Amino acid sequence: MMSSDTHVDDRHPRAESIRIREKLTHHVGTKVLALAGLIAHGRGEAFDYLLGEETTPAGMRAITAAAAAILLAEHPVLSVNGNAAALCAEAIVRLSQVTGAKLEVNLYHRQPGREEAIEALLREAGAREVLGVGAAASARLDEINSDRRMVDPRGIYSADVVFVPLEDGDRTEGLVKMGKTVIAVDLNPLSRTAQYATITIVDNLVRAMPLLVSEAEKLKSLDKDALHGTLSSYSNREVLGESMRIMEERLHALGEKGVYLEIDGKK
Amino acid sequence: MMSSDTHVDDRHPRAESIRIREKLTHHVGTKVLALAGLIAHGRGEAFDYLLGEETTPAGMRAITAAAAAILLAEHPVLSVNGNAAALCAEAIVRLSQVTGAKLEVNLYHRQPGREEAIEALLREAGAREVLGVGAAASARLDEINSDRRMVDPRGIYSADVVFVPLEDGDRTEGLVKMGKTVIAVDLNPLSRTAQYATITIVDNLVRAMPLLVSEAEKLKSLDKDALHGTLSSYSNREVLGESMRIMEERLHALGEKGVYLEIDGKK
Repeated sequence: MMSSDTHVDDRHPRAESIRIREKLTHHVGTKVLALAGLIAHGRGEAFDYLLGEETTPAGMRAITAAAAAILLAEHPVLSVNGNAAALCAEAIVRLSQVTGAKLEVNLYHRQPGREEAIEALLREAGAREVLGVGAAASARLDEINSDRRMVDPRGIYSADVVFVPLEDGDRTEGLVKMGKTVIAVDLNPLSRTAQYATITIVDNLVRAMPLLVSEAEKLKSLDKDALHGTLSSYSNREVLGESMRIMEERLHALGEKGVYLEIDGKK
Repeated sequence: MMSSDTHVDDRHPRAESIRIREKLTHHVGTKVLALAGLIAHGRGEAFDYLLGEETTPAGMRAITAAAAAILLAEHPVLSVNGNAAALCAEAIVRLSQVTGAKLEVNLYHRQPGREEAIEALLREAGAREVLGVGAAASARLDEINSDRRMVDPRGIYSADVVFVPLEDGDRTEGLVKMGKTVIAVDLNPLSRTAQYATITIVDNLVRAMPLLVSEAEKLKSLDKDALHGTLSSYSNREVLGESMRIMEERLHALGEKGVYLEIDGKK
């Protein structure tokens, strides 16, 4: 049985993973994705495999804390790069609608046409306003190297809480040093982004985004005190530690039992 | 200080890793690499990070056994795909010269012009004969799905030992089922390739290839009995187990100490 929009056989054990890869390679053609974005995706795949390819209890606690932080923010901004747009433009736009957070395109590689391609994808997904495109990215953050430093004065520049899915370490560190609350989504709990962010969701963006949207919808009716309570009981260190422990234990268990069937005659 | 042929600052902590990425993205343009090859490279990077980015004692034992197996073979073949050619065409050609193994291009994605681009890269690196290109890949291995099944009658089809760097699981399994000795290079000790191969070098190809060449040069002077002795004392299960244990312990140690400096005020 073939899925309607890809060439992947649904019965293939890695069908979902292959479909996501096809979506990303497609978006190299649309300019949304830089080639380096494919390599970054591969790194994520490896860590997701170790994580067990499911949202963990620690991941879920980080998602809840992230929803509370965005709802409590004065001026929250969702930063969007090529991989995030290619993988889940709809859920990102939905999160912005639910929370009132602004959307801003922010790229490591600002190649001609890329920002515009990402903006188009977000608008197709229902976005009314997209910051950070072209001349709009006129403010410079000296704490950050790379093209990432150019931001929109109406967006990241003045934000108190920034959601940065699939981020590079330099930028996360820079934003945190500026005193901003940074929410990251990163499958590698050892990365600089994961370690420096205020709230680190160690999960696959494709799984985490819909959960983040539904948490925001749920928490929206709570008063500020309840949201502050959720945030103050959250420990990012614990969440990172638990995520690493899960990977370590899974690696141990897979190593013990052998991943595949015994092969005759193998030493 | 900038390196002469890339844009990477030598002082960047990940300069070597970034240089390798640039080499691979360059070879998307030359058609040598398929886009899926970039994602695969990213997965390797993640496992290499867990391995400690150095050749382990287990990796070295596998390299020695691989050199002995190739030297003992009646008809050894080095299978070359896009990633392997892009990363180390020179060392692969050198290994073929030292051991007398034939070179064959074998691809998962046979796109127009790709085989020829890889052949050109191998010839530039000094190869005299390159099998498996175009109509030469006329024999069909029914054990394998994908374009990989088409092989050269003078090469993989009749080989007793096949060296398959950066391989897919289906093919490794197919070749092993056909009774061939398969030597794989794979940074993920849990992959189907790693688990099914006769000898699995869990190491970065860029580090392993020069070591494999020098081991072959060293062992070449030994007699067959000595080489058989090296092979018979080798256990791939042990090597895989040790590689997993190293990753597990490293993950544990990094998790214990926290990877980066303590950040003030972090919970």
